[in-house]
Order: sequence, then C-alpha cells, then structure tokens
Amino acid sequence: MNRKEFRDLASPDEAREAIDSLSLEGGIERVSLEDARGRVLVARLDAELDVPGFDRASMDGYALRARDTFGADEADPARLEIVGEVHAGAEPDVALEAGEAAEISTGAVMPDGADAMVPVERTDTDAGGDAVLIRTSVAPGDNVMFAGADVAAGERALGPGTTITPRDIGLLSALGVDEVPVRAKPRVGIVSTGDELVRPGDDLHSERGEIYDVNSYTIAASVEDAGGEAVLYPHAGDDRDEMERILREAAAECDLVLSSGSTSASAVDVIYRVIEEQGELLLHGVSIKPGKPMLIGRLDDSAYVGLPGYPVSAMMVFRTFVAPAIREAAGRPEPAAATVTGRLAREERHDQGRHRLMPVGLVESGPSETARNGGGESAEGDGDGETLVYPVDKGSGATTSLADADGVVEIGPETDYLEEGESVTVTLFSPDVRPPTLFGVGEDDPAFSRVLDGLENPRYLAVGSRPGLRRLREGVPDVAVVAGPLDRDVQADNIGQWDREWGLVVRAGNPDEIEGLADLVDRDLRFVNRTTDSGLRSSLGGAVADLAEERGTDRREIVDAIDGFDLGLRAHESPARKVIAGDADAGLGLRETADRLDLGFVSLGEQPVRALANPDRTGKEGVRELERALEDESSVQR
Amino acid sequence: MNRKEFRDLASPDEAREAIDSLSLEGGIERVSLEDARGRVLVARLDAELDVPGFDRASMDGYALRARDTFGADEADPARLEIVGEVHAGAEPDVALEAGEAAEISTGAVMPDGADAMVPVERTDTDAGGDAVLIRTSVAPGDNVMFAGADVAAGERALGPGTTITPRDIGLLSALGVDEVPVRAKPRVGIVSTGDELVRPGDDLHSERGEIYDVNSYTIAASVEDAGGEAVLYPHAGDDRDEMERILREAAAECDLVLSSGSTSASAVDVIYRVIEEQGELLLHGVSIKPGKPMLIGRLDDSAYVGLPGYPVSAMMVFRTFVAPAIREAAGRPEPAAATVTGRLAREERHDQGRHRLMPVGLVESGPSETARNGGGESAEGDGDGETLVYPVDKGSGATTSLADADGVVEIGPETDYLEEGESVTVTLFSPDVRPPTLFGVGEDDPAFSRVLDGLENPRYLAVGSRPGLRRLREGVPDVAVVAGPLDRDVQADNIGQWDREWGLVVRAGNPDEIEGLADLVDRDLRFVNRTTDSGLRSSLGGAVADLAEERGTDRREIVDAIDGFDLGLRAHESPARKVIAGDADAGLGLRETADRLDLGFVSLGEQPVRALANPDRTGKEGVRELERALEDESSVQR
Repeated sequence: MNRKEFRDLASPDEAREAIDSLSLEGGIERVSLEDARGRVLVARLDAELDVPGFDRASMDGYALRARDTFGADEADPARLEIVGEVHAGAEPDVALEAGEAAEISTGAVMPDGADAMVPVERTDTDAGGDAVLIRTSVAPGDNVMFAGADVAAGERALGPGTTITPRDIGLLSALGVDEVPVRAKPRVGIVSTGDELVRPGDDLHSERGEIYDVNSYTIAASVEDAGGEAVLYPHAGDDRDEMERILREAAAECDLVLSSGSTSASAVDVIYRVIEEQGELLLHGVSIKPGKPMLIGRLDDSAYVGLPGYPVSAMMVFRTFVAPAIREAAGRPEPAAATVTGRLAREERHDQGRHRLMPVGLVESGPSETARNGGGESAEGDGDGETLVYPVDKGSGATTSLADADGVVEIGPETDYLEEGESVTVTLFSPDVRPPTLFGVGEDDPAFSRVLDGLENPRYLAVGSRPGLRRLREGVPDVAVVAGPLDRDVQADNIGQWDREWGLVVRAGNPDEIEGLADLVDRDLRFVNRTTDSGLRSSLGGAVADLAEERGTDRREIVDAIDGFDLGLRAHESPARKVIAGDADAGLGLRETADRLDLGFVSLGEQPVRALANPDRTGKEGVRELERALEDESSVQR
Repeated sequence: MNRKEFRDLASPDEAREAIDSLSLEGGIERVSLEDARGRVLVARLDAELDVPGFDRASMDGYALRARDTFGADEADPARLEIVGEVHAGAEPDVALEAGEAAEISTGAVMPDGADAMVPVERTDTDAGGDAVLIRTSVAPGDNVMFAGADVAAGERALGPGTTITPRDIGLLSALGVDEVPVRAKPRVGIVSTGDELVRPGDDLHSERGEIYDVNSYTIAASVEDAGGEAVLYPHAGDDRDEMERILREAAAECDLVLSSGSTSASAVDVIYRVIEEQGELLLHGVSIKPGKPMLIGRLDDSAYVGLPGYPVSAMMVFRTFVAPAIREAAGRPEPAAATVTGRLAREERHDQGRHRLMPVGLVESGPSETARNGGGESAEGDGDGETLVYPVDKGSGATTSLADADGVVEIGPETDYLEEGESVTVTLFSPDVRPPTLFGVGEDDPAFSRVLDGLENPRYLAVGSRPGLRRLREGVPDVAVVAGPLDRDVQADNIGQWDREWGLVVRAGNPDEIEGLADLVDRDLRFVNRTTDSGLRSSLGGAVADLAEERGTDRREIVDAIDGFDLGLRAHESPARKVIAGDADAGLGLRETADRLDLGFVSLGEQPVRALANPDRTGKEGVRELERALEDESSVQR
C-alpha cells in the first residue's frame, strides 16, 4: 500500500495562521429590512431625515401657547377658545393666536402658533365644547417632541460592523430605510468523498460496508451556525475524475471548500494533486487530537480545508479552526465562550506532545444550578451543587459521541495526566447548552425510555446493567437502571422498580413451535444472545442454571448445546432483528420488543428492573422528578 | 373626545397568566435534515439500525485472527499469508483461515474468520507481497469497532423536546434519518394600524404628520428571534372595515395576532368590537411602565395581544410578556438570562405603584471586561473595571432609545427612588450583547464619525458640545467631543484635537452673494441657527460679539437684526436641509456638510474640536484605541 504519511505536524497556532492567511469573505449584498436580522452592516448609516419629522404632540389633549396657561391651576383654570382639531396623520388646517387652543391627538403635528400642549386629563370642556378649561400651567415645549429630537438628520445612526438586532431594525424603520448593505455570508462548499458513504434517507447496504454520510449535514449545520451559507455538493465516491470535477466546481462557486469523508488513499491523492495543480498546500497535519489529518490550502480562487474523515475529529477541527474563520468572514463577533468549571470525574492519561480536545459531559451533583459564566471568566459552583466532568469517548470511529457531550476540555501538549477530582474548565458547545437535569446509565428498557420522554432534559446512556452499576459505584451518574437479579449489595437508593417479561423472540406465529429454552438445547435452532453487560443475559444465565439442575448436568453442557449462545449482541433489539433478517430462529429479548416488531414471543419469565439512585444525589431535582415520574408510571400501569 | 380609559390595571403576573391561558402552538411539521437545525423535536427518535452496521476496521492494516499473533513482537514477528484485500464500501470476497491475513482499509468490513486487526505501521510485507510480518500481538476485538458499538438498534437516540444542534444532526445522519417531526413555528400575524404610518421605503409626508412604521418590522424581527414565524399584514390605516377585515384574516391564518401602531380611538374601538364579537377580552391594561395600554384576548381561533403604539413600549411589552409565550409554544428553552451587575450612574426617581422596565446602557469604567453572567446569577466586576449603568430615555415617543441601550433594569412597584451608585442588575437584551468598547457623547462631527467607523464597538450620542461636557463632568461617558471655545476649565485629558471650517451654508453657487455675517444683519435674508447646545453656535456667538464690537453696538442689536437667529435646530445638517428646501437663505453649518450636499459655503472661520477623556478612564482600552485612531487620522489629514 502506498499511503501519504503526515510528517512535520503543524502546531495549532500555525494552523490558525494558515487559515487566517486565506480570504473567506463573501463580499457585499443588499438585503431588505425583513431579512436584515442578524446580518452585519458593511457601511455606516447616517440619518437622512429628522425623526420625528415634525413637532409632535406626545399625548391626546390640547395644543396651545404656553404663555396662555401661566398661573392656571385646578382652582383657577385658564379658559381658551377651541379653534380646531388636529389628528395624527393629517396636516393641521388651523393656526393658533393668543387665547386659542386646538384639540390634538397623540402623534399629531403641532399647529402653527402652538408651542406646548396639555393632556386631556388636565382639562375640561366648557361652553358646549367651544372652549376648554386648562387646569395646569405648562412651559414652552411641554408634552411636545420636537422634530429631530429622536434622531436628527445627518446623525450617525449605525456604524459599520453592527450586527443588526431587532432594536436596530427599529431605528432603521424609523429612518425609512428598507434595504441595507450587509456582508454576504461566506459560501462554504461541502464535498464528501468515499465509496462507502450513503446519503441519509437512501438504502444502506451494511454488508458492503456502507455507512451513512454523517459529516455533510453536520458540517453544513455547523457552517450555518457560524454565519456561513452551506452548499452541499453531490457525493463523489472515489472516482478520481468525478472528485476533481466536483472539487473544482465547488472552488469556482464558493469562498471556502471543505472536504471530508473519505479516508481512502485515492481521495487524498486526488485532493493533493488538484491542490498542487490548481492551488497551494499551506499545511498538512496538525498536532492535535482528535484531528491530526487536516489540510489547509487554496484551490483555484477558493480557500480549502480538508477535514478528517471521522465525524468527531471533523467536528472538533471544524469548531477549533474553521468556525472562527467563518465567523470572522461573516463579520460576526466571537460568541462569548460560555464556560463551566468542574471536577474531573476520573483520571485521564494520554500521550504527551499533542494538543488535545476532549469532549466531555457534565453532571451536577447537587440541587443547585451549575455555576456558568458567559464572559470567558470562570466561576466556581457554589457549595450546594458541584459539577462533575466526564470524558465522552466511544473511540475514534464513533459518530455520535458529540450528541452525548456538552463541551470540550482543552489539554495542552505538555500535560499527560489529569487526576480524578482535578478542576477543569469546560468550553460549552454553545452558550445555549444546558447540562442534563438527570444523568442515567444502564439497561435499555422501553418502559424507562417512555418515562424519560416526560422529563425535562435527561441524558441516558444505555450501557447495560453491569456497566451501569459499575459507573454508579464510581459516583458519576445520578441513576443506574439495572435489570435482573442484583448479584451483590449496592450502595444505592432504589427509587423505582417494575417488572418486564423476557424470553425468546421468534418468527411471527412461532412456526418452529419453540416452547422454551430446552428447544434451543435439544433442537437444531439458531439463537442470538445479548452481551453479558445486559440484565437479560443475567436472567438467561439463571434459566440455564435451572435447566442444568433439572437435567442433573453441567451448566457448560447446556450452553455448548445452544447454537449461538456465545454470540452476544449489544443492542436490545438486535437479536430480534436477526430473527427478522432470517439469520436466527430465536433471539433473547422482551415481549414488548416482539410485540412492537410483530414477532412471536416465548416467555421465559419476568425480571425486575430497578432505578437505583446515587445516594449523594437523592436531593437533586432531576432525581426527584424521575422518582415522581416512576411512581406515576407504575400507578398507571398496575 | 370619547376615549377608552384603562381602569383596574392588571398586575404583570396576571398578564402572564392571561397569556399562558392562550394557546399559541403551531402543531407539528416534518422538516428535512438540512432544515432541522434549531428546530424542536416533537417525538422520541429511537435508532432503527446499528451504527456501524457491521464490524468495522478502525485503521488501515491487516485483518487477522488474534490467536495467530500471540507472542509476536518486533524481534519475532508472526508471518501470515496475505489472501485478499478489503476496501471501504466493498463486500469482503475473502474469508480467513488460520495463518491468513487480509489487507483492510479504515472503515472496511471485517472479513469472516477475522476477529482483530493490526495497523499497517506494525507490519512489514514479505515474500514479494504474498505474506505479512506482524510485529505485535493483539487480542480479539482490537482495532475493530463492532456493529452497534456506536449506536445500537432500538436505542433511544433523541428525546422529545430536543432542540436540534449540529451534533444531533450528526446522530440523525448516522441513523439514516433524513426527515424529522418538529414543532411548527407559531405563526404570528402583525397588524399595524394608524393613518399616520408609512412603510419604510415609501415616501414620507412629514407636514401631514406621517411617520415610518417602526413597530411592524421590529416586532417581526423579535418574533423570529423568539422562534416564531412572522407574517406582516398590509397596513390598515384607520378605516374600520378594512381594519376588521385584516384582523380577522390574520386571526384565521395565524396562531397569534399582534396589533400595534395606532393610538387613535377609532382603531381601539374596532379592536374592542371585533374581540367582543368574535372572541374574548381577557385583560386590558397592565400596571407596568412602559406598556400600560396592552390588550390580551382571543380573536376567532387565534390568540390576540394588542401592543402599545409607542415603539419602546411595544418592544418592552413584547419582550416581557409575548416573547416568553412564543418561545414556550416553539418549544424553545428560555435563554439563559445574561445579566450584568453595575452601579447606577445617577439617581432615578419615579412614580410608585407600577412595575417599571428601565432601558439602560452600560459603560465600563476600567481596563478589564465587564463581569458577565450567563446563568442567571450575578457576578461583580473585578476591582479593575466597574460597570456603570445609565438610563436611556428619550421620552415615550422615541423610537430609537433601544438601539442605544444594552438591557433592562426591572424596578418593583414599591420602589420610587434609586440612589446614585446603587447596585442594580441589568438583564441584557440578549446574551450576545456586548457593552460598547467606548462610550462618547458631544458634538456631531463628520471627521469624528469617520474615526468611529474604524473602532471596534463604539457608542456615540451626538447630544451637542455643552451637554457632552456636562455629562463628562458627571462621570458617565468615557469621552466628550467638544467644538468651539472651551468657556471654562474642564477636568479632562485632551486626547485629540482637530480644526473644522464653519460658516454659512448657502444655496449652490451662492446666488444671494452672501459674504459674511454682516449680510444677515443688514439684508433681508432668512437664516437658520443651531441650538445653544452646539459648538457651532458658540463660535457664532463669538463672531456676533466681534461684529458688535466692530460696529460699536450691542450684541443683542446684532442678534435681533438676524431673521431666524433664535430658531435653533438640533441636528447639524438640518439648517443646510432648510436651505435646500427653500425655507432659508443661509444656515449655520460646516464646509464639509455644504460640500457633501452640493451647497455653497461662506466661511466664518475655523473652530477647534477636542476629544476630552474622562480622567478616570485614560487607561481603558477603548479610550486608548480612540487616541491612537485620532493620531492616525490627523497624521493622514495634515
């Protein structure tokens, strides 16, 4: 094999400099006021007119000459002759002389001769409506907003670089501006390559090693989050000519081209070649983890960044290097980095020498909210609630880790070890991120999943019963959900318990007439098991032991006689899906799963499922909310 | 006049309850993954497949049986026969027996018989490529990502109520989901009424009291900020039938109808009547300032809220009552209220008995950043930089105050007095709001305005030279810009000074052959002055005194002889615009203004303009940046 190796890795700062040296800016466009929200003004706007454009009555009442009211009060009102009426939106057809007043509406033009007004509440009409009694005295200008008092013609209204808020739209409306010059959003072309990639929604052939294209839509959404306009190009596969054609088309149409997806040598070769022929390669490989295989350069007239193929790596590189450049080009200020300080839930060791971006989840240990900070400074949680920070890592090929993470801890290249309990600062993925109200781990259970649906903002990782219990003992999650028998004493509060029926999921109508476990032992049937992490597997172990005892034989003999007993799948629905696919005659599962997938079911018993709370967290609001929800659910069900 | 009066004002809590009792929800819609960012999921999504869907090689290298590598190391490699090759996106056409290996690419399907893989870096090829030397030993499963290890079929993927982030889009893509059910955005119809309102972009007739419609676009942008979909209805004027038709059309098409704009009795009457006939009025008038005249009710099948007509009041009521209801209906969490704590820059007195929402601006007194808080708790500024909070209030008719404000201080109905220096908490308009880097006040000057264009995020209020100096003495702004002679000692640092030519702006070509001030005194010419706040007026005062001395007469005699001397306009361009409009023969102004508007100019002299910094703020970064920019500007100009 002939693969390019990345040598001479650049530092993160060198990568930033390389991206800064590219121009991603999209030019100028004019947008209507309706589309101006959030856009960035490119030029100063000065007021072209006075606001208001005329001397304006601030209330309903009477326009008059202030001098005529001098000395007037409740007891001794001034009496003025009513000589007309002025409505908002109408030109006054009256001019006042001494001793005269005109009815006037809020917002109407002050008539000639008037220099003040009195609100209707301080007046009475007199003489059948021909005169008005003014029961207060006013000074010239009282209750009048003069022309230009709000904004004066020629005044600087909004400066260049202003990100237009609804309040600015108010100002622009007042000035009669219906179109503004703004920075065009940088156009960012996204090219994903790789024969194995399939667009979501299309059919997937797993047997061929196909996977859904994760990066395209994820990066597109991230580009838009950063203020760019994402353009998705058709997926190129690994055909070299096609890939070159698409890359060059994207470069011609966009300010920045991002490629990602393929890890194949041929894709990398094409990209290298096109960049060498049509552009310039500034940098290949950054000393950062995840994200090492990154390319920065120019392709024709466009900037180019090659992202790593693994989704988590691609996203971390995007966030760290590309998003700031897009925001800069879009004229958007860097968002106030919302940070949270917390204690690391377990020690972390890693290789020295690379800057590391560690996706983490947050869990609050007490009843109060996490101390958050929106301005780049850190704030400790108060005594009641402390924040635990745990690394989220499903391995480098994982696509979904980031959906379970709240933010990132950056670790410098000189650090190779972080102690448990060490204070770390987490940069949240966005200021909107809220740590979950409840963090649970353990068995995947459909009834529990429904209960979670009713909670505010839970996070649940279906790691299985045993790993769930282990993590609970380590003190990180709030709750572990454990199915089957508890094989040892657990320091935890049982906050809810329910039963579920488990057994063999078989073909619809049970055509093999499977009656129980003995059939799997005695007949030629293909079985699919769950992994030992699962609570179902524990109960199956008990049934195997019972059958062995009944037959006076060894447990191992029973197990060896079952075809597929050692093939354990992690997902609770996977055995049932193997039955559907015809790859097995029976799978370990729940009645609920069989019912939902329209399959047959052979019951082997009921098993308890327990929600066990971390004893230190029983006062936490999310845990109490779960406890109440479990009570409600069981009172409905039973 | 027969106007409705609001009696029995509701409390803010009653208003919130009334709005909560309305249903604004827009139902469910399905959107494609490309449009899903920021939308709110209405149902739980479970994984329908395993991710990955197959056992997947994590690196480039060789698939093999772990058992065959036991004991292998650098010195004593295991030698395996290469029997095939598996690429990403291809179905393996090979199955391994003991002693065999297959080349495999990252992401490719593990062939049958293989249970581990070894990265290419730990191998060498042998025997012309027919065999491979494995220089490490691996355990079963090493460097393989098993099917479902990332997400397992049946696993809970995303819960209902999830606001979809790019990270969630990654998860959905991995699951092959290309469309998701989300909450429809609540449709919010915006109806503005009032004969005086003109849409921005159309011609304005100020003499008839017309003003641009500020509320429609501002509220529309605010609706979209809150997660709603804004629908602007054509402006109805005060015609009753037309207004009723538009209100009912909006009610039929939208989940919420907002009206605003007209303060006329006839509009209010129509709205009352339509609500009474076709709906229900729940509340009229809230004990809040600004914002008292608010209506809450139902119109046909739609919710209805009548906002006050004044833009500042309308926006404050919208923010306080309507935006939370729209966010709730859109399924959006309340944004973390970003708050800043600061000292009140001047005492504030107001009427007891109404809850008050006071728009304020922020200014930082020191070199450091404002202490901000994104999580609802307050944090004091550190010792270096303190935040001053000053009320922004141009009067109830002002449309633009909010563009000069950063947030709101809420004051309870029991409070009627806040001391200068009192600590107050400001809720920022949004977490994105940044206090200005520089806060200046004073003379409107075109050269200074250009300098501001180059600064990061300045705020400048063109209040005139005298008020600017007064505010500087009160200690609020960082800088005051003062034109003309300084009539008293000022405790301030002069950080930049330049000259500008001032005089009489006259018609193009100076057809009246005006040569100087004497012409205004001696001839029958109409003049337009500036207000005494302006530095230009001070210099004009000096010229008048000189002329009086030259003629051996009294200053008052000169002034009385100038037609229009007492008519002072606030805006620096307004006198010039009066000349253009034919309302005056000469106006006080700058050569630069005359040149820009293609008018003639009669010079009366040069006047100095000084940027005077608050002596306590000379270390502030924004002030230093201004000082540098003024130096650069003068070195370019001179």
